[in-house]
Amino acid sequence: MNPQLDADGRLRHFLDTEGLSRETLTHILDTAESFAEVSEHAVKKVPLLRGKTIVNLFFEASTRTRTTFELAAKRLSADVLNINISTSAAVKGESLLDTLRNLEAMHCDMFVVRHADSGAAHFMARHVQPHISVVNAGDGRHAHPTQAMLDAFTIRRHKPDFENLTVAIIGDILHSRVARSQIAALRILGVPEIRVVAPRTLLPAKPRALGVVPFTDLVEGVHGADVVITLRLQKERMRGALLPSEHEFFQLYGLTEERLREASPDAIVMHPGPINRGVEMDSRVADGPRSVILQQVSHGIAIRMAVMSITLGAIRSEGTT
Amino acid sequence: MNPQLDADGRLRHFLDTEGLSRETLTHILDTAESFAEVSEHAVKKVPLLRGKTIVNLFFEASTRTRTTFELAAKRLSADVLNINISTSAAVKGESLLDTLRNLEAMHCDMFVVRHADSGAAHFMARHVQPHISVVNAGDGRHAHPTQAMLDAFTIRRHKPDFENLTVAIIGDILHSRVARSQIAALRILGVPEIRVVAPRTLLPAKPRALGVVPFTDLVEGVHGADVVITLRLQKERMRGALLPSEHEFFQLYGLTEERLREASPDAIVMHPGPINRGVEMDSRVADGPRSVILQQVSHGIAIRMAVMSITLGAIRSEGTT
Amino acid sequence: MNPQLDADGRLRHFLDTEGLSRETLTHILDTAESFAEVSEHAVKKVPLLRGKTIVNLFFEASTRTRTTFELAAKRLSADVLNINISTSAAVKGESLLDTLRNLEAMHCDMFVVRHADSGAAHFMARHVQPHISVVNAGDGRHAHPTQAMLDAFTIRRHKPDFENLTVAIIGDILHSRVARSQIAALRILGVPEIRVVAPRTLLPAKPRALGVVPFTDLVEGVHGADVVITLRLQKERMRGALLPSEHEFFQLYGLTEERLREASPDAIVMHPGPINRGVEMDSRVADGPRSVILQQVSHGIAIRMAVMSITLGAIRSEGTT
Repeated sequence: MNPQLDADGRLRHFLDTEGLSRETLTHILDTAESFAEVSEHAVKKVPLLRGKTIVNLFFEASTRTRTTFELAAKRLSADVLNINISTSAAVKGESLLDTLRNLEAMHCDMFVVRHADSGAAHFMARHVQPHISVVNAGDGRHAHPTQAMLDAFTIRRHKPDFENLTVAIIGDILHSRVARSQIAALRILGVPEIRVVAPRTLLPAKPRALGVVPFTDLVEGVHGADVVITLRLQKERMRGALLPSEHEFFQLYGLTEERLREASPDAIVMHPGPINRGVEMDSRVADGPRSVILQQVSHGIAIRMAVMSITLGAIRSEGTT
Repeated sequence: MNPQLDADGRLRHFLDTEGLSRETLTHILDTAESFAEVSEHAVKKVPLLRGKTIVNLFFEASTRTRTTFELAAKRLSADVLNINISTSAAVKGESLLDTLRNLEAMHCDMFVVRHADSGAAHFMARHVQPHISVVNAGDGRHAHPTQAMLDAFTIRRHKPDFENLTVAIIGDILHSRVARSQIAALRILGVPEIRVVAPRTLLPAKPRALGVVPFTDLVEGVHGADVVITLRLQKERMRGALLPSEHEFFQLYGLTEERLREASPDAIVMHPGPINRGVEMDSRVADGPRSVILQQVSHGIAIRMAVMSITLGAIRSEGTT
Repeated sequence: MNPQLDADGRLRHFLDTEGLSRETLTHILDTAESFAEVSEHAVKKVPLLRGKTIVNLFFEASTRTRTTFELAAKRLSADVLNINISTSAAVKGESLLDTLRNLEAMHCDMFVVRHADSGAAHFMARHVQPHISVVNAGDGRHAHPTQAMLDAFTIRRHKPDFENLTVAIIGDILHSRVARSQIAALRILGVPEIRVVAPRTLLPAKPRALGVVPFTDLVEGVHGADVVITLRLQKERMRGALLPSEHEFFQLYGLTEERLREASPDAIVMHPGPINRGVEMDSRVADGPRSVILQQVSHGIAIRMAVMSITLGAIRSEGTT
């Protein structure tokens, strides 16, 4: 029933954290542990995906995300094609489905897709041939599951027991594909308390239905938290009516050393990057001892290597053991 | 005498199908057969061109064509450089010859060239050093020989006996480098009847001299054909005086299921892509049982692998056996 | 003390020729000799940097320079990432330091940096983690050390004894990072007479302090020289008040066959490319028997392979023997 799984329950696509089992997510985290070591070796390559062709199909520009997928693929010895669609086929009026069919015909093995429309990755997964895997690298406001998993990985390295955690997510929850995927992943992994902290206009309409506790006050929301995640503020939205200014956002929701003292004494601070310093958080927090933001970046490679290896069947899936 | 052959009659450049022998074209097709299998393996790489440097030198943007050459080169284990000239040296006022001399000095082995000017690939082949090969990836209105060969390959897989075929090519024959290279290739391979179907303004001036039979009526042109090839309509030209509108073109020359019934019962339908659905053909034809359009894309990789291997001397040329 | 060396005196970064020892520069030249042969082999690859990740971080577009670094890295079997910052993170307002930290966290091993600001490469070298090397691919008006070393390499191949040479550098000395790095390298290597030839407005303010002899007359400056280096004229500057026109520059400082007769009978002519033909020199000189301009391009790959291998510790540094 889950479009990400094949008939044997094996993870074939990675589109969303929602709807997956705790076993599947844990298997991804465990596999990433072994790859985290590979990246620290002098020779950072393993031949797991040699001869496979992975296509970065980016309909939305993102050098940072594309780079992490490209590095992950190269360290698995796959061949990588970077295709930026806004400057190519889309201009010639080719449909998404025709683009897909053509890349399939070239015997590509995986599509890593980023698209401004929610549901684009699911659409592709529904239409690709049986031997091809689709990985969602961010679709509209919907999901960004590899980001959520690298966040879960980073949390687990510092706080191994998900079942005893309080996690606070601060920022534009309503429009964030990162928050949506994080919430789903952390719930599946057993986190008992997930808080969302934002001005009322940026909170989800029915937080309880999502299993999260809403806060409009930052200090209350952060109080006692083990993990504090700040989201990137999309500046485009600041120009609209939802928020008056960056300055005002920082006054109310910017993470400072003082406010962070409300959290648990050994709380970690996370951010998906790139940080707007002085908007989402103060530089002293971003670069301070609680920050694990650069670890998130490192773990992003390991998680993407894990997701690529598992979905392409190069590593035994937990579903088949 | 033929600029594509070296002193021993070996294929050194691939600029045009015109002027080559049936043996040479057949050798390319036969070599591509072996590569077509490589692309279907789990590990799609062979080490034939390891340590060679292949430069995609694109003066005209074409993600699709560039991608097929890039994949072909990577599956032969070559290193690939993508150089888009409109955004680099040309801006600094460097001449084509200086660009060439510089890339030669970097010890590149092959230039895959796409250029808006007819004759650009021949110009380069005349001026490169003896150890370098030039492959034409489309030059102006002149030639697109790898497209013609992948079409011939696709035809041969369905209709092995070229000498008993009727092929109809529909569209803007006059301005099409694809049509020009197809006609030359199919004549050399022995196809006895090649028809061109277009409004009078888009037909070549002297079709008989090209060895083709002109038709202005689609139904007559397709009648009894074994192979129906539709060309991509260049929308830029629609804005000129040659054709009034896409809609009118489809009315007169668009391939529909009904019109296709005029062809031979087991006729195949081809298109170089990307298709303008509802202009050159109806989606029911494009996605229907007679369409081999996606096979053309697959075969494009195999043909380019064959051309690269043969011209770089990694596979024995038919001229040397 | 020198930011390019580690505690053991090993070359860790390559930012500038200035301040390095003759032994270090000679070690780079000797190492490049072995790589110059690799590029002429049928298989142009060696596995020295397999599993390493080299990032071309270009804040200023330069296809030609980027290409030589990319080829050098690929021929050493490294993985290469091309990041053009003007079109990515910088747009999102990320600082140079944040970009650096993120790429470090992805376990990249080397940054090849080109930047419009003088000192950018030094800034990065000061801030990267201990295991990462920075190579300067041109920073503002400051330095372009790999260009200077490929020039020294080319000179040595024709004139092995640096201590008996007269070198004339012609053009906009004042604003040229190439000239600055050449002068430093040639002085360190022992060249006794380095002349700079330019209109007064383009000469350095205190030439004697740089160890060079200024000339405003081309014929006098070239007289008896063993090596004549012409710099590329930045056309942007022509529009300013410093020089009236390309035509006038050629009249006064363009290298012609006649003027070249003033130099030593076996003088060589060099240019960093791309040449503005008819501005810096006549085509008869550029393509003539004295020109070693294309050899410079070839040697550029070998020098970059040497610098990459030495700084990443894949080849024993002269400082550790």
